[in-house]
Amino acid sequence: MNVRVGIVVTGTEVLSGRVADRNGRWMSEQLLEMGVDVAHITICGDRPADLTAELAFLRGVGVDLIITSGGLGPTADDVTVATVAEFTGRPLHSDPALREDIAQIIAGWQRARGFGDGTQLSPATLAGIDKQSLVPEGATSIPPTGTAPGVAIAAQHSEDAAMPAILILPGPPRELQQMWPAALATREVGEVLSRHDDIEQSTIRMYGLPEADLAATLRAAESDVDGFGDLEITTCLSRGEVEMVTRYSVRARPVYAELSAMIEKSHPRQVFSIDGSTIDDQLAELLRGHLVATAESCTGGLIAARLTERPGSSAYVAGGVVAYSNEVKIAALGVPAELIAEHGAVSEPVAAAMAQGALTRCGADVAVSTSGVAGPSGGTAQKPVGTVCFGVAVAGRDTYTRTLRFPGDRGDVRALATTAVLHMLERSLRR
Amino acid sequence: MNVRVGIVVTGTEVLSGRVADRNGRWMSEQLLEMGVDVAHITICGDRPADLTAELAFLRGVGVDLIITSGGLGPTADDVTVATVAEFTGRPLHSDPALREDIAQIIAGWQRARGFGDGTQLSPATLAGIDKQSLVPEGATSIPPTGTAPGVAIAAQHSEDAAMPAILILPGPPRELQQMWPAALATREVGEVLSRHDDIEQSTIRMYGLPEADLAATLRAAESDVDGFGDLEITTCLSRGEVEMVTRYSVRARPVYAELSAMIEKSHPRQVFSIDGSTIDDQLAELLRGHLVATAESCTGGLIAARLTERPGSSAYVAGGVVAYSNEVKIAALGVPAELIAEHGAVSEPVAAAMAQGALTRCGADVAVSTSGVAGPSGGTAQKPVGTVCFGVAVAGRDTYTRTLRFPGDRGDVRALATTAVLHMLERSLRR
Repeated sequence: MNVRVGIVVTGTEVLSGRVADRNGRWMSEQLLEMGVDVAHITICGDRPADLTAELAFLRGVGVDLIITSGGLGPTADDVTVATVAEFTGRPLHSDPALREDIAQIIAGWQRARGFGDGTQLSPATLAGIDKQSLVPEGATSIPPTGTAPGVAIAAQHSEDAAMPAILILPGPPRELQQMWPAALATREVGEVLSRHDDIEQSTIRMYGLPEADLAATLRAAESDVDGFGDLEITTCLSRGEVEMVTRYSVRARPVYAELSAMIEKSHPRQVFSIDGSTIDDQLAELLRGHLVATAESCTGGLIAARLTERPGSSAYVAGGVVAYSNEVKIAALGVPAELIAEHGAVSEPVAAAMAQGALTRCGADVAVSTSGVAGPSGGTAQKPVGTVCFGVAVAGRDTYTRTLRFPGDRGDVRALATTAVLHMLERSLRR
Repeated sequence: MNVRVGIVVTGTEVLSGRVADRNGRWMSEQLLEMGVDVAHITICGDRPADLTAELAFLRGVGVDLIITSGGLGPTADDVTVATVAEFTGRPLHSDPALREDIAQIIAGWQRARGFGDGTQLSPATLAGIDKQSLVPEGATSIPPTGTAPGVAIAAQHSEDAAMPAILILPGPPRELQQMWPAALATREVGEVLSRHDDIEQSTIRMYGLPEADLAATLRAAESDVDGFGDLEITTCLSRGEVEMVTRYSVRARPVYAELSAMIEKSHPRQVFSIDGSTIDDQLAELLRGHLVATAESCTGGLIAARLTERPGSSAYVAGGVVAYSNEVKIAALGVPAELIAEHGAVSEPVAAAMAQGALTRCGADVAVSTSGVAGPSGGTAQKPVGTVCFGVAVAGRDTYTRTLRFPGDRGDVRALATTAVLHMLERSLRR
């Protein structure tokens, strides 16, 4: 039986949907990559009774480790440490050294912000520091990466009950991620995670493949690939790409290799990644030595934003034009007004002219363009909502154009068009 | 006691962190706006035992309604309906009318894709349809918005046990959202939700206010505002804005009004919304009759993408330039090369020239610009990572510039700079 982890995300802002949870997702990915299974992620508000109920649930289903995120702040609505202490029957004690560390951090912040010399902390601040330096008896505190320390509590197995190990981490994603290595290095957590099986995880990514076609291939594999049952396969359609993630024990490596080869052979045009790399990773590689420009209408800047998301992208992104109005298409990209009058702004000739304009005006050697009807209004019988024309201009080559029709709402159409153009760019660069 | 709901999100791709959950968030927001409390959101993979454990947990903590999302597909790894049927002790029956409806939908899809005339469905497809038309005994099925029908099961209260109402919804967010009104209209769900108290929720949004300052105001309100204890307040810092959401029963309306007035009075420059509107909502209003352009360096298209996110934004967004390289700043925005040489690309003079360039070249009457060091590299002692220079150009006025320094990683800096420029634009337009 593999090690299983339960994650508890606390915070009324997450429970209420106002803020998307990033911590549960992030930790789950980290743990899966280590070969550790996550069984449940639960989210509750900052209420001791609800948090206790989730802890009891996870203990009840027998997870080996519970990780909580959030609720470590200085104010009264942050209740995680006290609630976990109560749950595990460990009284809270003040840790004077920790108290001093937190006071130093806060004094440093106040100095940096110009609030005095940091030697005078207000009574409210001091009360917060007192609260944040409380540690459950016998637990290990993990140095703060913001102001809140983490806490690691060892598993306890008695004859009549088992208490899993509990790791308490802060809520701000940056603090949590910075604390992660130190948290894994604690004896309490290390003890649990070291017991995990050797599980591997591999990802195949496909573009332009209907999920049903992949399902058919997998059905065939079920009978053709010996040991298929040892693979845990999940497929998922996201932004137009199909992602197939397989988990298997090291022993089943040859089985996975056989399946992977079969999928590549069945869908050679659609499989674009078998090593876990994303289209963004691949473009970052392919664009080395190139300079790319964008000319966006319906995607409104999403392509440029995506291309510049990565550190170091300034080496290959020249820039681009968001040509939302026809005037900007004409003035900033040099699209002939007659072309727009003749074919309409959403047309392949205009998309081609936009890409060529971006190429020239931004001094790039490769450029992509979009012009489409993102909706909800603006659709016609010939060009319904979801219609997007694309252009890919490469210096010294004919400009490639294409028209696709995407389902969904405005946000879907914009996201799908962005993914589509990245794949067109990738195929152009590989040619 | 108010009505409490528990949400179960199923799907290995969500549990593993590969896909962010949108359904739990979305439903939670919908329910809170209706005055219904969400107590827990739980996430598990497509494993019957884990799903059953979560259902039992939610029944155990006494929620009135459980809503599940996901696991309704035609393939074997989709287990929600069968698992819930087992959990509630209701055998599954095939619904012939539903079967026919689903077959029609799939045949229509196949015709649209050009796969024959849709009269010949493969054995695998037919098996999937058989599976999707199974309904637990006594339950109401909700017409599919994709291919999967939803299911509503009434609460059952016997002497020795209580079974909450259960609503089963599909996983794809669009299908779930489209099915939502019909789901709420079922007798089974309506019965539960009609019992909720009259709870209101109000939001105040602030920009540029340290959370600690708001905390101090709230501490003062605790003693100054009579009935303060009847308000359930949560505050949350997101993309540089502080959002304070308060829930209260209709009876406490005057208490909230007093608190709201106090906060507005204490932070007049920072409170920008007391009616729930976002900065995006406000800009959409303020930009009526204007034409806005963008000139982005470090934000790389995020501002333009944000401004064009809304339907109808083409009425006031002209477009913009993503001027990532200096060459593009010079060629596409007309920034003088000497200005860059003298002050550096990340400087207020260059930001001003960028905004002015966007204004002129895009034929706009208001334009914003960013030039900064998003990191992780490129920082210097004078301009460390996180430094961003902004410009706001309004036709007929002096161009406004400002420099801010943001914490965090590349993604944080880009997101915070985007929010900052939207607030600068808003203040400019109000002036």
